[in-house]
Amino acid sequence: MSAPTPSERAYVPFVSVDNMMQLIHRIGIEDMLSGIAAYIEEDFKRWELFDKTPRVAAHSTEGVIELMPTSDGTTYGFKYVNGHPKNTKEGLQTVTAFGLLADVYTGYPVLLTEMTVLTALRTAATSAVVAKHLAPANARTMAMIGNGAQSEFQALAMKVICGIDTLRLYDTDPAATAKLMRNLQGLGMTLHPCKTAEEAVQGAQIITTCTADKQNATVLNDNMVGAGIHINAIGGDCPGKTELQADILKRADVFVEYPPQTRIEGEIQNMPEDFPVTEMWKVIRGDEKGRTSDCQITLFDGVGFATEDFSALRYIRDQLEGTGLFQQLDLLADPDDPRDLFGMVLRATPVADQA
Amino acid sequence: MSAPTPSERAYVPFVSVDNMMQLIHRIGIEDMLSGIAAYIEEDFKRWELFDKTPRVAAHSTEGVIELMPTSDGTTYGFKYVNGHPKNTKEGLQTVTAFGLLADVYTGYPVLLTEMTVLTALRTAATSAVVAKHLAPANARTMAMIGNGAQSEFQALAMKVICGIDTLRLYDTDPAATAKLMRNLQGLGMTLHPCKTAEEAVQGAQIITTCTADKQNATVLNDNMVGAGIHINAIGGDCPGKTELQADILKRADVFVEYPPQTRIEGEIQNMPEDFPVTEMWKVIRGDEKGRTSDCQITLFDGVGFATEDFSALRYIRDQLEGTGLFQQLDLLADPDDPRDLFGMVLRATPVADQA
Repeated sequence: MSAPTPSERAYVPFVSVDNMMQLIHRIGIEDMLSGIAAYIEEDFKRWELFDKTPRVAAHSTEGVIELMPTSDGTTYGFKYVNGHPKNTKEGLQTVTAFGLLADVYTGYPVLLTEMTVLTALRTAATSAVVAKHLAPANARTMAMIGNGAQSEFQALAMKVICGIDTLRLYDTDPAATAKLMRNLQGLGMTLHPCKTAEEAVQGAQIITTCTADKQNATVLNDNMVGAGIHINAIGGDCPGKTELQADILKRADVFVEYPPQTRIEGEIQNMPEDFPVTEMWKVIRGDEKGRTSDCQITLFDGVGFATEDFSALRYIRDQLEGTGLFQQLDLLADPDDPRDLFGMVLRATPVADQA
Repeated sequence: MSAPTPSERAYVPFVSVDNMMQLIHRIGIEDMLSGIAAYIEEDFKRWELFDKTPRVAAHSTEGVIELMPTSDGTTYGFKYVNGHPKNTKEGLQTVTAFGLLADVYTGYPVLLTEMTVLTALRTAATSAVVAKHLAPANARTMAMIGNGAQSEFQALAMKVICGIDTLRLYDTDPAATAKLMRNLQGLGMTLHPCKTAEEAVQGAQIITTCTADKQNATVLNDNMVGAGIHINAIGGDCPGKTELQADILKRADVFVEYPPQTRIEGEIQNMPEDFPVTEMWKVIRGDEKGRTSDCQITLFDGVGFATEDFSALRYIRDQLEGTGLFQQLDLLADPDDPRDLFGMVLRATPVADQA
């Protein structure tokens, strides 16, 4: 008896890290950031459709492992993601991730993909979509505090989507800044390394804070933030991990993705429970105002939400066809008679007997 | 420039459906059921160590998609599983699943595996572990109401772990019973097909109900259940889906896995919130009594809990070495310098340029 061949339905397209990188080269990273941003914006506009829940987190001394599910009623998606700030010292990624889309009607998965690289793209695309709505109209200069794994993606997304052409860079480790400068060389931005965070924010219309310490570090003080600035605060994203001095929050208008999650994980975790925030989807849809004056300080307290991963997964699924940049994974048992799972197992001839 | 080769850490062992079936043939299905049962029992005994949460469910008109995470502090695991009773009519599985283990210390995944087949094994192993503690000592005959995809696994686990040698079979569809009888032929059990559920329960010491309708069906009436019986009720496992007449619950001593989940999903969803139940881990550890008399009716209101998947995943991980029955999946981005994710993407030479 020969081993049964899995049916088409048993296979799930899988995008490996290598194939994701090939896809980025094929599409072009700037076009891919724009494309993902468009999907994120589209999904923010139909926000009410989504099943929303704060992510399901397993915390340990060393870090956190999270599941981030959501659904628009037709398609279900989730991401597995870890956050281990101590990993960098051991030569590992702080954040690794993979994600999945499934068909709500059958419950069958339809896409599995690496999301370490994809998360970097969607986080940057989200920041840029938000900045497009909140930053001063003629913003050209961004201060980037924290020059780690996420920084180049942030820079390019802000360039493509918001017209940022000048970066003022600071990291506690100058080697990180040097790495960023090497990577962004020749990509059309003017780069200024700075010796302090104070120096980096001078003349910037956007300040991005993107550090990864799991402590209530203060990378931005109140006296560093002038009028008319947009702050893109994305490093504070779990309990006990914030980047801004609380006084800044009191002066700024704060914009968030999903308040129940941001109040647990974002900068506003240090503020009272009724601290006023505006939901970004309302601004993007035109239901609420974003920036209302030139001297207003707007602050995006970004923690990353499941719908953004969903948007990125949808984008990848829509780009894959015809590229060959995926493998077919034999992930689902699919016997001819669905009630005959046992029979399928019985009839699977051991490899050794097939010779 | 050549494409960078992913480092060892970037790879995650993946067990496909075909490899899972090969592993079952290599180990032997009865030994595998015993092995998984031993891991389940071990993990029930260290119950208090686990991070426990009711599963995270996305319900739709057609079914449910669930994530079931847990952690023992050292290893993290989760399962993706759907439940779509209407799928069978369309030639698809009611339940498909896959699962993952990760290292809590780094957050890096260490195993990805199909779990449609593995879930069938762990569900059966759990039922048998429970029956070992609750069924009458000399139980030899089991009634099996519902002869679908889970039934043969239940039968074999009860044979290996509890000494059941006779099955009395009933399904609303005789074709399902015929399929079960074909599959279990020659595996050392006496099989009696029955025309009604009433006929099936006659002379049985264990009654297993294992049907898949998402309705409050009543497959077992109070007058069908005599003294001294153990009921293994595993088909009622989500809101609106139960199998037993409520009167049976009132006469029986009810044993559950994790009360907060069972009160939502199990047979006891129809009972008051303070309906008394005993947690199985306490019985298995010897802290609470299981069966206390010959005429007692014991009822396992099994819904499936994350720790059982965790046990099954641990078992698979421990069996894999040296078998070659897995693929290495390029799931994790792992640049040489962990902060240089962007550089890794930049340096990935497109496939077309490698010729």
